[in-house]
Amino acid sequence: MSAPQAISTLSPLLYENLVERELAVDLGQAGDLTSDAVVPQGAKAVASIHAREPGCIAGLAIAAHAFCKLDPSAAVGWIVQEGAEAAQGQELMQVQGLARPLLSAERTALNFLGRLSGIASATRRLVRAVEGTDARIVCTRKTTPGLRALEKYAVRAGGGSNHRFGLCDAVLIKDNHLVVAGSVAEAVRRVRSSIGHLVKVEVEVDTLEQLEEALQQPIDAVMLDNMDPVRLRQAVHLARRRVLVEVSGGITPETAAEAAAAGADLISVGWLTHSSPALDVALDFHPA
Amino acid sequence: MSAPQAISTLSPLLYENLVERELAVDLGQAGDLTSDAVVPQGAKAVASIHAREPGCIAGLAIAAHAFCKLDPSAAVGWIVQEGAEAAQGQELMQVQGLARPLLSAERTALNFLGRLSGIASATRRLVRAVEGTDARIVCTRKTTPGLRALEKYAVRAGGGSNHRFGLCDAVLIKDNHLVVAGSVAEAVRRVRSSIGHLVKVEVEVDTLEQLEEALQQPIDAVMLDNMDPVRLRQAVHLARRRVLVEVSGGITPETAAEAAAAGADLISVGWLTHSSPALDVALDFHPA
Amino acid sequence: MSAPQAISTLSPLLYENLVERELAVDLGQAGDLTSDAVVPQGAKAVASIHAREPGCIAGLAIAAHAFCKLDPSAAVGWIVQEGAEAAQGQELMQVQGLARPLLSAERTALNFLGRLSGIASATRRLVRAVEGTDARIVCTRKTTPGLRALEKYAVRAGGGSNHRFGLCDAVLIKDNHLVVAGSVAEAVRRVRSSIGHLVKVEVEVDTLEQLEEALQQPIDAVMLDNMDPVRLRQAVHLARRRVLVEVSGGITPETAAEAAAAGADLISVGWLTHSSPALDVALDFHPA
Amino acid sequence: MSAPQAISTLSPLLYENLVERELAVDLGQAGDLTSDAVVPQGAKAVASIHAREPGCIAGLAIAAHAFCKLDPSAAVGWIVQEGAEAAQGQELMQVQGLARPLLSAERTALNFLGRLSGIASATRRLVRAVEGTDARIVCTRKTTPGLRALEKYAVRAGGGSNHRFGLCDAVLIKDNHLVVAGSVAEAVRRVRSSIGHLVKVEVEVDTLEQLEEALQQPIDAVMLDNMDPVRLRQAVHLARRRVLVEVSGGITPETAAEAAAAGADLISVGWLTHSSPALDVALDFHPA
Amino acid sequence: MSAPQAISTLSPLLYENLVERELAVDLGQAGDLTSDAVVPQGAKAVASIHAREPGCIAGLAIAAHAFCKLDPSAAVGWIVQEGAEAAQGQELMQVQGLARPLLSAERTALNFLGRLSGIASATRRLVRAVEGTDARIVCTRKTTPGLRALEKYAVRAGGGSNHRFGLCDAVLIKDNHLVVAGSVAEAVRRVRSSIGHLVKVEVEVDTLEQLEEALQQPIDAVMLDNMDPVRLRQAVHLARRRVLVEVSGGITPETAAEAAAAGADLISVGWLTHSSPALDVALDFHPA
Amino acid sequence: MSAPQAISTLSPLLYENLVERELAVDLGQAGDLTSDAVVPQGAKAVASIHAREPGCIAGLAIAAHAFCKLDPSAAVGWIVQEGAEAAQGQELMQVQGLARPLLSAERTALNFLGRLSGIASATRRLVRAVEGTDARIVCTRKTTPGLRALEKYAVRAGGGSNHRFGLCDAVLIKDNHLVVAGSVAEAVRRVRSSIGHLVKVEVEVDTLEQLEEALQQPIDAVMLDNMDPVRLRQAVHLARRRVLVEVSGGITPETAAEAAAAGADLISVGWLTHSSPALDVALDFHPA
Repeated sequence: MSAPQAISTLSPLLYENLVERELAVDLGQAGDLTSDAVVPQGAKAVASIHAREPGCIAGLAIAAHAFCKLDPSAAVGWIVQEGAEAAQGQELMQVQGLARPLLSAERTALNFLGRLSGIASATRRLVRAVEGTDARIVCTRKTTPGLRALEKYAVRAGGGSNHRFGLCDAVLIKDNHLVVAGSVAEAVRRVRSSIGHLVKVEVEVDTLEQLEEALQQPIDAVMLDNMDPVRLRQAVHLARRRVLVEVSGGITPETAAEAAAAGADLISVGWLTHSSPALDVALDFHPA
Repeated sequence: MSAPQAISTLSPLLYENLVERELAVDLGQAGDLTSDAVVPQGAKAVASIHAREPGCIAGLAIAAHAFCKLDPSAAVGWIVQEGAEAAQGQELMQVQGLARPLLSAERTALNFLGRLSGIASATRRLVRAVEGTDARIVCTRKTTPGLRALEKYAVRAGGGSNHRFGLCDAVLIKDNHLVVAGSVAEAVRRVRSSIGHLVKVEVEVDTLEQLEEALQQPIDAVMLDNMDPVRLRQAVHLARRRVLVEVSGGITPETAAEAAAAGADLISVGWLTHSSPALDVALDFHPA
Repeated sequence: MSAPQAISTLSPLLYENLVERELAVDLGQAGDLTSDAVVPQGAKAVASIHAREPGCIAGLAIAAHAFCKLDPSAAVGWIVQEGAEAAQGQELMQVQGLARPLLSAERTALNFLGRLSGIASATRRLVRAVEGTDARIVCTRKTTPGLRALEKYAVRAGGGSNHRFGLCDAVLIKDNHLVVAGSVAEAVRRVRSSIGHLVKVEVEVDTLEQLEEALQQPIDAVMLDNMDPVRLRQAVHLARRRVLVEVSGGITPETAAEAAAAGADLISVGWLTHSSPALDVALDFHPA
Repeated sequence: MSAPQAISTLSPLLYENLVERELAVDLGQAGDLTSDAVVPQGAKAVASIHAREPGCIAGLAIAAHAFCKLDPSAAVGWIVQEGAEAAQGQELMQVQGLARPLLSAERTALNFLGRLSGIASATRRLVRAVEGTDARIVCTRKTTPGLRALEKYAVRAGGGSNHRFGLCDAVLIKDNHLVVAGSVAEAVRRVRSSIGHLVKVEVEVDTLEQLEEALQQPIDAVMLDNMDPVRLRQAVHLARRRVLVEVSGGITPETAAEAAAAGADLISVGWLTHSSPALDVALDFHPA
Repeated sequence: MSAPQAISTLSPLLYENLVERELAVDLGQAGDLTSDAVVPQGAKAVASIHAREPGCIAGLAIAAHAFCKLDPSAAVGWIVQEGAEAAQGQELMQVQGLARPLLSAERTALNFLGRLSGIASATRRLVRAVEGTDARIVCTRKTTPGLRALEKYAVRAGGGSNHRFGLCDAVLIKDNHLVVAGSVAEAVRRVRSSIGHLVKVEVEVDTLEQLEEALQQPIDAVMLDNMDPVRLRQAVHLARRRVLVEVSGGITPETAAEAAAAGADLISVGWLTHSSPALDVALDFHPA
Repeated sequence: MSAPQAISTLSPLLYENLVERELAVDLGQAGDLTSDAVVPQGAKAVASIHAREPGCIAGLAIAAHAFCKLDPSAAVGWIVQEGAEAAQGQELMQVQGLARPLLSAERTALNFLGRLSGIASATRRLVRAVEGTDARIVCTRKTTPGLRALEKYAVRAGGGSNHRFGLCDAVLIKDNHLVVAGSVAEAVRRVRSSIGHLVKVEVEVDTLEQLEEALQQPIDAVMLDNMDPVRLRQAVHLARRRVLVEVSGGITPETAAEAAAAGADLISVGWLTHSSPALDVALDFHPA
């Protein structure tokens, strides 16, 4: 089987340095004291990675880079695709190579794979919860320091979509901006007079009054933040088809389904990236 | 109040670059489109960070660095110490400075603070569960790529201890090493003949038979991995006072308390660093 | 006078490393052989930078960083603002400090300032040419390797606006994409099914037929590329008020004025960043 | 045909990081939104680069690195040599590979190639203007930040020579140094007492009096800066055969020819590197 | 012959960047002026490295990386193993490739190889001096800035062992710590209450009184620093078999043999890494 | 007393990163286990550095940077100048600050200071040996990887001069180049036709015949490599006053004096940088 078909392109420019730095941290100045002592130089092995619990897989190419960086002659065999839903015990990939570097790279490879697959799996559960509606599950900027691009990729692998990647690629007027500008109208006016022609504008609102003011402005989307179910339905009803409607705050599969049913276009979930538990993945090792 | 009294030294060498890279990712090439448009240049503000839920705080100096890097003239006021247990709503720190950079640094600061405080809080709960015993809660190498030193610091801030920092600072003979060496005795022999005189040796065992073999060897500690409660008590009884006894696998406050009561010296918990949910921290913002 | 009022925020994160690397390249391993030999250690001086030709100024803070990095005790006095239109001979800024590092940093400081002011000046001339219309002058991705963020800032300092900062912040469907997709409709369909909700879509068209097809699609803007004046007027007439209309190709002050008069919203100019001549700026030096 | 025969060695150490950083800036965290959406994964293509206007080519290997970094399996076919004079429409190189990465690397490749070829072309024009004399066209330290080594290579590709690469590899006593030292004699004395035995010394003079003083000193070259044609001829006459004579300031093909005819050894041109317009190069793209 | 069998694993992560930076420093912006001018492009050559004096060899793979980085097509032939004792004139390795890059990489390759082989050779002499005893020769943290991991590897190649790699992997209570703590007992108590369970503790003592106090504490090793021979024998006698005994200060082959005979477990030698003279290695070059 | 008067400027750009990387290596991920445990947070101390043996001092500002990086509030008091000849026991500098970071930075500071002072001291001894002649002691490119600029600075601090800093700043035609070119005349011809006008040319010769051939060429200097004393005197006699004469190979104070007396201009010594023993410097520590 060829390299895993990515849900979307993940440039090696985004992970090579991270993987190499992580290997360098784990090996330190002294290297892998245990494997260097126990494993004869030149011994070969096969390492097989499997899922210890069911989940959606993301990060196989990153894991492979950890092994290949320490053993450039290692051969990787892909067994599942990125975004695949693995059953408990499902084998995911195999690596054949030198036993020492395979053992030395194990933890680094699994730390990336487990974290990204954890995010993909949580995303997939929410995506399933809104299946049949037009709503999309989106992540936020509440990502782990150093891993934003990878975590947003994992959300895509899980079937979700990406919100802004940074402060630099879209405008989101939040409560603190309104404190400064004085009103939604004034904030939007200031933004419109300075931003580029390919930049969209979204406004975060907490109340129906704010929403109504926002809908008077030339904006592309509103974010309804932490509204109770009743008000949320009213708000979505008011806004949909006029602008894109994003719902955020305390999202669970149940509340996601409700918001989707009410007509939300986007359901944004900070905890996908900051609090998803890692998927339990493990490595089996056989001398070869 | 002076700078937060660290539970232990956290060298700026370990976080300055991380914070600056994260700011650079968030600002991208175009900068903070929203704040630059909405907030007048030169406007001043006060930002106050508080905990939205109760928890143990870690990472205040890192959060402060995010603000100070973007506004070198910002003044930071510390309100709680590192390792403090904050109540819901507790204010943690204040920053006075230019409004634009304070808003631009907000997410970066909170992403670090929320993640590290989440780990510290989870650690503290386990530490409380074993209070009154000699057992220590320790973390593992299952850390988030790029954040090992910070996450291990957060464990210390929560009252826990650190296991190995990498493959380079202690020997841990695991199942895959035993596959290669053939026996615990041979693995330990190989290690003893090569390692430095200040390196300790621990062996992971799954069964009582392995444990008995291990206890014949010149080792410093054993890790009892994923044993059921009955066997675990037998194993701890067998090993304690001869070597340090570490218990790992599926640790909850309840199983931690049991292992501690049985006499374990160390209770190691991978999920502390790979799956603790972030603590919910937020920033209030007032023009000044 | 306080620090120069930026046209828009230019984060030091975007230029500090560039300036320091450039100083390192110029000083090499041996340092400034001439100044170290000729200038007594500890000698003080005043350096004054002025424009040798009229132009619009951008990059003063970057130039200042070059001096301050080599002499942290240097004092900078700002005389004009970023974006100011300087007359020939106009003094721009003064630096007081140690004579050796001031001389060593001179070329680095001037290379940044001259290049960015050259871009700002060229932009300002085009902005003047379309004054009184709603058209905006925008730059492209045809920037100098390593300097994109700074060159786009210089365009803003000159009164222009920024197009995309990279492949990552907006969709621009170009001829090569159409070759692959087969039609504008199919290309837009593929894009719409995958991009985030805050991403805008622009399509480049060469003919009126392509334009008509594009206007049937859910897009935000069209780029009319290299059309002759007659066809350009027709195309603008057809598209304006339905989508944003960008005109590109062979822009001069005269053609910019024509396109603006015809109703173009945006006039994009690659040569602003890849071929503007540097503004001639120089440094006078007086022992102090 | 084998790899392009370089005019002189250009070590990949000098451009690999620059190219990779530039790709990273263009792709950002989100990648090439358009190509990832429009182009099917795995689709193959042939990209052909040609010159849209006549010029002297420099930077082919750098352009190739951009494509190969994003698609390590890409095959590059060289059609012209470095330093070749291409006619309008001349094809320069071909790349076969995956369509997505070829499109994603296009702008980065062209930005390097266009800029360096622009410098080479301008240099070639001046070299032609002094053909038949012994004069050499040389560049200065007025280079684009970050690109000094590449721009100086482009000057060599165009047939020119390089002046100093930095403050570190030769002594050039300029007006500001004379202000400090008080006289040419004293400046040269200070320099001679400290520099290494393989370092040459040049002095910049503005007047015939300064020139006469300089010629009394143990120096290797003089730079005649911004002299009018009459004085320039007198100065060259006075200095040639005693030291190397460099002419600088306001150089055009005409003034270059005059200076060369008068006997100048070197004609230095700052605008070659800071203000040459880019050569217009473009990429054609065919599915393969 | 296959790649040199390392005494212990030396990860390329530890030297690749160092080698590439060193090449970049030597080549600078202008490259190898001499070889580029004298050697025709494309000319092939064979370079052979030999030892000009007898010694123990370390660093062959690092030297090879220097050649291969500048000429990726170069073929390396290994003639001796890492740790081999080479006679005067012994050939060590051969490289076939392009003549220009082989010459350009020569000095960088030899600088690494000569330094590391010098350390390995000095280590081997001390190891020989204590042969037949249980004493091990160990290095310290007095390493050359930037080269710690490589120098500690060279000590292993010479047959020695490594002490701490840094402040981070073991506790060594030195005189300055005792000044702060007031007593050995208090210092050890503070350490024991905070360190991880896999961290060992060593105490440096200058007198027999300090040694007796230290031996009352729960420590793993003592370092006897700069004791005269008589006292040293007393101290070793007192401490051995209770803790590991390290002897340091003014070590020569003679004093090393004495300390080993007296029963020392470890003999630590700062000058191995900070003051060993380089081994004289040279490169022969033949056009091929 | 103010900052140490440098023999020549040593830009912080050349050592800041090196010092910070070295601190990071020593502290690792876990930090200074001993000092963090033993020394109370906030405790103050005074650290005083002195020479344990007589020598010439170089690197004080670098040592200071190590302390100040870990404790930005530390106050440094300079006691001797760079280049000073310190007696045994001479105090060199004092640092007041926090006790923990002072102890953590001690080894890094001393490793830089000891190495550079060792080189300066060895240089000074050779400089003394040729006092009263015109000969200068110069170093070579046989420097420690990573430290070239600092080691060449140390040679200047010791009173020596610098040869080439790299392959990039002068031409040195060596035996391997002659193998390729076939003759000195041809090698010089090739070089002369390509190098810049400020680049000097030196030729290495082993025999009087080669020397005579070299003296026919337009070169600036000759290097007489490893000649016996009789031939050396002949060769110097032949070459001096025609070109600069450099003597190299097996230099000791005695042979240096002989070469100087014979009229050599330059005496180059590889072992100054690759094999000088470190100067023994130590740190005393007093709670404050």
